[in-house]
Amino acid sequence: MRKYGVADTTFSRVDMGKEAIRVISKEDPEAQIVRYTVPGIKDLPAAAKRLLDAGCDGVITLGWVGRTQLDKYSYIAASVGLIFVQIMTSKHVMDVTVHEDETNEERLAQVAIDRARKHALNLVRLVRDGPNSLTPLAGKGLRQGYEDAGSLD
Amino acid sequence: MRKYGVADTTFSRVDMGKEAIRVISKEDPEAQIVRYTVPGIKDLPAAAKRLLDAGCDGVITLGWVGRTQLDKYSYIAASVGLIFVQIMTSKHVMDVTVHEDETNEERLAQVAIDRARKHALNLVRLVRDGPNSLTPLAGKGLRQGYEDAGSLD
Amino acid sequence: MRKYGVADTTFSRVDMGKEAIRVISKEDPEAQIVRYTVPGIKDLPAAAKRLLDAGCDGVITLGWVGRTQLDKYSYIAASVGLIFVQIMTSKHVMDVTVHEDETNEERLAQVAIDRARKHALNLVRLVRDGPNSLTPLAGKGLRQGYEDAGSLD
Amino acid sequence: MRKYGVADTTFSRVDMGKEAIRVISKEDPEAQIVRYTVPGIKDLPAAAKRLLDAGCDGVITLGWVGRTQLDKYSYIAASVGLIFVQIMTSKHVMDVTVHEDETNEERLAQVAIDRARKHALNLVRLVRDGPNSLTPLAGKGLRQGYEDAGSLD
Amino acid sequence: MRKYGVADTTFSRVDMGKEAIRVISKEDPEAQIVRYTVPGIKDLPAAAKRLLDAGCDGVITLGWVGRTQLDKYSYIAASVGLIFVQIMTSKHVMDVTVHEDETNEERLAQVAIDRARKHALNLVRLVRDGPNSLTPLAGKGLRQGYEDAGSLD
Repeated sequence: MRKYGVADTTFSRVDMGKEAIRVISKEDPEAQIVRYTVPGIKDLPAAAKRLLDAGCDGVITLGWVGRTQLDKYSYIAASVGLIFVQIMTSKHVMDVTVHEDETNEERLAQVAIDRARKHALNLVRLVRDGPNSLTPLAGKGLRQGYEDAGSLD
Repeated sequence: MRKYGVADTTFSRVDMGKEAIRVISKEDPEAQIVRYTVPGIKDLPAAAKRLLDAGCDGVITLGWVGRTQLDKYSYIAASVGLIFVQIMTSKHVMDVTVHEDETNEERLAQVAIDRARKHALNLVRLVRDGPNSLTPLAGKGLRQGYEDAGSLD
Repeated sequence: MRKYGVADTTFSRVDMGKEAIRVISKEDPEAQIVRYTVPGIKDLPAAAKRLLDAGCDGVITLGWVGRTQLDKYSYIAASVGLIFVQIMTSKHVMDVTVHEDETNEERLAQVAIDRARKHALNLVRLVRDGPNSLTPLAGKGLRQGYEDAGSLD
Repeated sequence: MRKYGVADTTFSRVDMGKEAIRVISKEDPEAQIVRYTVPGIKDLPAAAKRLLDAGCDGVITLGWVGRTQLDKYSYIAASVGLIFVQIMTSKHVMDVTVHEDETNEERLAQVAIDRARKHALNLVRLVRDGPNSLTPLAGKGLRQGYEDAGSLD
Repeated sequence: MRKYGVADTTFSRVDMGKEAIRVISKEDPEAQIVRYTVPGIKDLPAAAKRLLDAGCDGVITLGWVGRTQLDKYSYIAASVGLIFVQIMTSKHVMDVTVHEDETNEERLAQVAIDRARKHALNLVRLVRDGPNSLTPLAGKGLRQGYEDAGSLD
């Protein structure tokens, strides 16, 4: 049976973990889902690593980043960490990140939910359906949180 | 018996280690607490690693970062290091950092103490109570050092 | 038999993976080519690692980076990750990246295709023909996506 | 018998290695001290790693960084490297760095010497006297190269 | 017999690899020299790792970095990678880098050649003569590519 990890934070202002769980349980109803909540983005790599240690086939992390330059530096560190968790374990960790300053506050919740849902679906595709499941969409300019940019062809 | 590590610095202008120890010993009175003091933030990853090597179940680090851009670069390096300690050991290291320029000097001590105390509590929650202990607070926009931002829902 | 991995993204606005496969299959017709499509650049290191785990002798990744500073931070993290995949496995991963803001939209598709094709050829050279296959071109100021800068001699 | 490593550079404009050795040999007269000189800061992580491989209990590195933004990027890379040497080996490497632009040229030599001496002492404290040797100074706002900032309490 | 690796790029506009080989073969005539040419700086860590895997005692890499901020981000990633190759293998990799914008085009070839030659000599010193071979020059403000800055003493 497939097992998915969902790691989210108390720093986030939107419950993206709940959205990710909804999508995964709808798309892959027989799978087991394990949730792990940590304070902030710098805690997500450890959560993801522990979820993979515990047998998850893939993980989605749901991070929220503040407005300051210091927050952005933390984002770099967390991103590097999440990538290393993946290459140490050879498993996918979908790194969903919302930046508090990427759009206005009204739209931010929508962006967060859309991004969480689309990447939860991406995770199921990669874990259950494998390396070619997204290939028909390669180069199509897909976006999460916003409208697709589309292909330049 | 649970064992917590508390790593702090002589560079810091507030004794955050003392605050963290107070909270941990109050929240988890039977636990053992080991303190490790180093000069500055770039020494914290080694301290955290050594504390975990010595059997700690989790560590809190209490860093203080100066005002210059060079200090911020050091912050990036230290943050990456602390994240790697976590993914190498699959243990949590709560990385508490105060930036000397994030607020005015009057408020800075309060920010430092509040942040140290709240993250010490987070550490106990994660180490003692596990991955779902913070889940009721997921997406709630919690902040350490300042007032909670709150949920956008 | 040689085996090449081609990792691309749905974020990209040009199907660079298709171009890379064309070049590799033309240059090294007996080789096996395995494709792996992921959402975005931060997923490429895991894809590359998994392709190498599955026996690829070398990999080409085809990333597309957005216009914002946050996209650039993600680029740094992904680049570090791709380099680590290489030094962990002692195999080459040709990291092809197109930045949405590096030229105007009309030229961008051409840049992407030229860069993908030239680096696919570089990958074949290194994997099949070895460390001295590119040596006659050392110091010649070659560019991918644009005209060669040429030698200063 | 304790063994300390001292790694310095030919790029530096002050012989900080000599100062560090003076302090260590005065503070811990029975200890063995091994010196390792490399061209610049990006060579210090390898020197530190080799010193630790050769049995040193701790290392002090004495780096000098130029004025340009490129020098600062090199500083980030070297800092990350020095931190990784520490977490790979679970040993301390005191990373002393002087930036050519942090003060005027008249003061720079003094800053370098003061910083090298104070951190050499810190290294002896940590290696010989252990994790609580600096604890009485935790939160005291100590500085190396400049006057102490002092505690905010 | 000593064995040196020389890794260079086709992106470079000066044949620095040739210069490095000249210096090494003159300074250490009995040594074996292995050359490895890759497209650009982000490929150098893999080349260096493969050269060390193949028995080289030390490596010199000769990178060339473009003018844009994106090139500089690539420089950070490549630098971190080269440092990790060194600490994973406990061998030296002299990282020679020329930035296209560090001086005017007339001087650039001279800078590149001078830097390559001086660091090739540094590599021989460290590999053949050991950790104290450069110690008489510690703190002397040596520069590669430009005139020495000199000591502040």
